[in-house]
Amino acid sequence: MIKNQLIIIKIGGNVTDNEETLRSVLNDFTHIPFPKILVHGGGNRADRMCQALNIIPQKVEGRRITDAATLEVVTMVYAGLINKTLTAQLQALNCNAIGLTGADLNLIQAHKRVKGSIDYGFAGDIDIINVENIDNLLKLGFTPVFAPITHDKKGQLLNTNADTIAAQLAVNLCKTYQTTLIYCFDKPGVLLDPKDESSVIPQMNYQDYQLHKTHGSIAGGMIPKLDNAFAALKSGVARIVICGSKGIGLRDESPKTPQQQGTMLTLDTIESHAF
Amino acid sequence: MIKNQLIIIKIGGNVTDNEETLRSVLNDFTHIPFPKILVHGGGNRADRMCQALNIIPQKVEGRRITDAATLEVVTMVYAGLINKTLTAQLQALNCNAIGLTGADLNLIQAHKRVKGSIDYGFAGDIDIINVENIDNLLKLGFTPVFAPITHDKKGQLLNTNADTIAAQLAVNLCKTYQTTLIYCFDKPGVLLDPKDESSVIPQMNYQDYQLHKTHGSIAGGMIPKLDNAFAALKSGVARIVICGSKGIGLRDESPKTPQQQGTMLTLDTIESHAF
Repeated sequence: MIKNQLIIIKIGGNVTDNEETLRSVLNDFTHIPFPKILVHGGGNRADRMCQALNIIPQKVEGRRITDAATLEVVTMVYAGLINKTLTAQLQALNCNAIGLTGADLNLIQAHKRVKGSIDYGFAGDIDIINVENIDNLLKLGFTPVFAPITHDKKGQLLNTNADTIAAQLAVNLCKTYQTTLIYCFDKPGVLLDPKDESSVIPQMNYQDYQLHKTHGSIAGGMIPKLDNAFAALKSGVARIVICGSKGIGLRDESPKTPQQQGTMLTLDTIESHAF
Repeated sequence: MIKNQLIIIKIGGNVTDNEETLRSVLNDFTHIPFPKILVHGGGNRADRMCQALNIIPQKVEGRRITDAATLEVVTMVYAGLINKTLTAQLQALNCNAIGLTGADLNLIQAHKRVKGSIDYGFAGDIDIINVENIDNLLKLGFTPVFAPITHDKKGQLLNTNADTIAAQLAVNLCKTYQTTLIYCFDKPGVLLDPKDESSVIPQMNYQDYQLHKTHGSIAGGMIPKLDNAFAALKSGVARIVICGSKGIGLRDESPKTPQQQGTMLTLDTIESHAF
């Protein structure tokens, strides 16, 4: 059976915070001629709202500690302000967007992260993606726009990492669709030299990645991102692209498969057989 | 053709602001054995958020002046905090809720209110209800939960009165459904004596209403509410009930038609033939 294409694009604060960049990205997104899902973050905006409300944002290794007051802020900023602004802007471009959280139609059910040495508060780790209802929306020609808020099906909203939501959507929908996952971040791709934006690695397989890690040319925050990406590929996601805000535009007017600029991640033959 | 029943319930801040009342209302709502839509307000909560952010809420005759900063607040509070909290709570009760604004799927298209002697700012007056897409959601067994935010299809979100959204949904859906509209507010119904909560008028037709107005037993804020309600009846809404938070519970376990406590508004025979 030939599966239909599905494109899942995650955009971060570098896109949603800049009016011009956002306009360009949403325009490119609208022109993708496949069923598609947008996932957004918005941490910077949430930080600014916390400050305006005299709530001090608390983070451990970049991960937010979500106390009750912070949960209210992220629910307002992610699910209200950013999500509905994106939805209205996509509607203006004739993309039939629908803004969603994991609570809507129980699309993403999570549990409150178990307390370890750190109590992350109302942070949610995903349990179930409701593939049937997402597919129902896609079949009606709707374009889901996900805010990084989930729930526990017991009435509690939870703050969940947007990168993880995008990856979990891609993994869970790859049985039904040929799924491409695109991380649109603040660099034009994975760089061989972090200081040189022209040093984008166009394609990287798992073995290349291991070599880059060993040589130290890939380090820091890219490592968890790439570990998660390769895990998603191993779980059946067809294609993962890491790119900048200009990377989601299509190179070809009527492509048969999605084509983006940036770094295309692939499994090498041995790895893909192993899983 | 016998139309299916559809119940549209509007709840105000008196319900969403009180945890216990809200739990009871959502429980009653969940048990209504018909397709249903919830519409919520949240002005009090928005006022408190404005104050926390040092934005002074401005109102003329109870209607909010929505400047750009206030629009951000109402989008956050209505479409984010209140809408997603209600959605998560309904999901916990196994009601398959989906939180929406008018921007989602272009469900409610509005225009920025034309400046008269008062500039209401980003206030939206409704132009089009997208009946087809609402019906698509209802047919899938989903329960729409509407925040009082619409858009102009040009990328601008707009603040729109929740009572009006509920009435417009009821009027526009009455071609497809036998529509009951329930306003759940802070009194148990329309009172003959505003100081006596036991003086609920159980049923009132348009002629009764005119008499009550003439005698002065109905006055003030009830008049625009009732004028709008009778206009909706004249436009084909089957039934309108004005009740308190305990009014939406069903009297009968398996009713053939919706039965609520409170004040049932009807057109008299002459009026209903006239339209």
